[in-house]
Amino acid sequence: MTGNSRICRLSQPLPLDGGGALEGVEIAYQTYGELDGARANAILVCHALTGDQYLADTHPVTGKPGWWERMVGPGKPIDTSRHFVICANVIGSCMGSTGPASIAPDGAPYAMRFPVITIRDMVRGLVGLLDALRIERLHAVVGGSMGGMQALSLAANWPERAGRVLVIASTSRHSAQNIAFHELGRQAIMADPNWRRGEYYGSDAQPVAGLAVARMAAHVTYLSEEGLTAKFGRNLQDRPEKSFGFDADFQVESYLRYQGSGFTKRFDANSYLYITRAMDYFDLAEEHGGRLADAFAGTAARFCLVSFDSDWLYPTSESRHVVHALNAAGAPVSFVELSAPHGHDSFLLEHETLDRVVRGFLDG
Amino acid sequence: MTGNSRICRLSQPLPLDGGGALEGVEIAYQTYGELDGARANAILVCHALTGDQYLADTHPVTGKPGWWERMVGPGKPIDTSRHFVICANVIGSCMGSTGPASIAPDGAPYAMRFPVITIRDMVRGLVGLLDALRIERLHAVVGGSMGGMQALSLAANWPERAGRVLVIASTSRHSAQNIAFHELGRQAIMADPNWRRGEYYGSDAQPVAGLAVARMAAHVTYLSEEGLTAKFGRNLQDRPEKSFGFDADFQVESYLRYQGSGFTKRFDANSYLYITRAMDYFDLAEEHGGRLADAFAGTAARFCLVSFDSDWLYPTSESRHVVHALNAAGAPVSFVELSAPHGHDSFLLEHETLDRVVRGFLDG
Repeated sequence: MTGNSRICRLSQPLPLDGGGALEGVEIAYQTYGELDGARANAILVCHALTGDQYLADTHPVTGKPGWWERMVGPGKPIDTSRHFVICANVIGSCMGSTGPASIAPDGAPYAMRFPVITIRDMVRGLVGLLDALRIERLHAVVGGSMGGMQALSLAANWPERAGRVLVIASTSRHSAQNIAFHELGRQAIMADPNWRRGEYYGSDAQPVAGLAVARMAAHVTYLSEEGLTAKFGRNLQDRPEKSFGFDADFQVESYLRYQGSGFTKRFDANSYLYITRAMDYFDLAEEHGGRLADAFAGTAARFCLVSFDSDWLYPTSESRHVVHALNAAGAPVSFVELSAPHGHDSFLLEHETLDRVVRGFLDG
Repeated sequence: MTGNSRICRLSQPLPLDGGGALEGVEIAYQTYGELDGARANAILVCHALTGDQYLADTHPVTGKPGWWERMVGPGKPIDTSRHFVICANVIGSCMGSTGPASIAPDGAPYAMRFPVITIRDMVRGLVGLLDALRIERLHAVVGGSMGGMQALSLAANWPERAGRVLVIASTSRHSAQNIAFHELGRQAIMADPNWRRGEYYGSDAQPVAGLAVARMAAHVTYLSEEGLTAKFGRNLQDRPEKSFGFDADFQVESYLRYQGSGFTKRFDANSYLYITRAMDYFDLAEEHGGRLADAFAGTAARFCLVSFDSDWLYPTSESRHVVHALNAAGAPVSFVELSAPHGHDSFLLEHETLDRVVRGFLDG
């Protein structure tokens, strides 16, 4: 389908968790479907770490379909013939919203002068967008992975803004292992001499090698061991025998190299640093005095959490932890663990039961 | 304890699985205890990817205790008052045995001209050492992780050379996920401009940044999620609050950076490429017509396999796969899955039950 591409410039400086405020924030977003007269049928879909606002139409850089086209459209589980669907690029990212590649008030790119932001700061930007669109209360907020963190953060910090909260393959906090994988990605970027402490904009030499390694490291965590084995096993890539060299002999090597290098064409290395940092800082309980149930004390929303049994990045136990907190807060919550072989990435892939759960929760 | 440091120069060129032969191979090794008159009390301990021959005495570079001092010594589970214990640096490594940093016949370091080797090639080198030591039959061969691969390879390809085979936290083949983690480490090294296609020997600029990232990536796979959470959780490093910067705020970040940079002082980047490649190539069934049981058809040895329940690098299912093949081959085998919170690295750490299993198997 075709979405509407817009940019919203926030009228007020955006206060940040780290102190101070960001001036002149722009939020790039896509919308699909029509807002009803009561302005009550909006669904905000929040994107993941390397996602963007191109939810359900062709990506302008890659030319590929939107990242959730199978889920969003007329008659689809997130039904654009009934709902006005919004997807905005988070601040800190690089597809049109204000981030490290944006021009600072002094006329040069922010680069590493961009402030370190949090998931709550991203959501504060999204709430600014909702204000500008005069949407007081969303029918629902929906997100997978980092998108789920945003949905939880919105529910906890702006409890009056969403009637339903759908959180898929996500967590209320980053674990030591989650932080470790992100940290090695950041170190790979910072070790790239072309990174030059972030001052590479406008240069011919970009930190693509470091960014590709960071993407490869993250990508392995998105897939399950069994999914990798089923897809690649120890199959060789276009050759009958091992080469006894350092080419990509195995299909899984070739696939990872492709993932790494493809990613660098559409993503900014500094954005990768800032967004992974925001995710590592995320701990919804800590923001609310240390007890997760207290984060949801003020909520009147209905919640639905979905996990996948093969997701080892944000395993089912993390979703269950959120469900227990919602139970303790007295919030209505449904929870399902789905069986899927593909690990964390399952939320992006074909899954009929997921479709039924999403449709049932949003329209039931 | 103090070991004897020796270097053995193989009298014959070493045939390689990739074709050709390596001339003038040297094997650096340590021994502990005394060889008995029948030359029948020797135990060969095989080291892991980043290990070396300093099994039970101080490491000459780091000044730290030997990597298995808790296991090897007088009265310890691998008892040097009863056994003559040998640990040799594998070929391809960098602690004295012939590897990419060694001088080739033309007077320059091999660098990437070093041939791609296999686990079986490493073991062929070790068998050459046993020949030189006139040890026809080992009392036992023992190894954890890549050391376990060598033990299995020796049992399969030189079945008359060892009476007992003890394989800890290992596998008979590298999975797609195992290959993926190694590949991103190799890409990190090769992306380092100081790597210069391996021609960095004698230069001031070494590929330490890439090697550190590779080590960080591997290190995360050696630890369990629960072990990381128990050890670090989301604890901050020497600061009361998050810095809202890119320093190592979290203890786990600081730990990983320390692991990465420490490693570069004792390990050669090219060796890391060659040894990870050998591990990725490892598939004992493939070497023997595709059926793992056939690899053990000729064995008269007793086997013991040990896995750890929190090891997600080489999970228990991989050990069980080997056990089933040994059962099918009619070989006597005992198998135990131990409970330990620390993931793959558990084999290096204090574990009383492991000690009992090792002692019982070697001396029973």
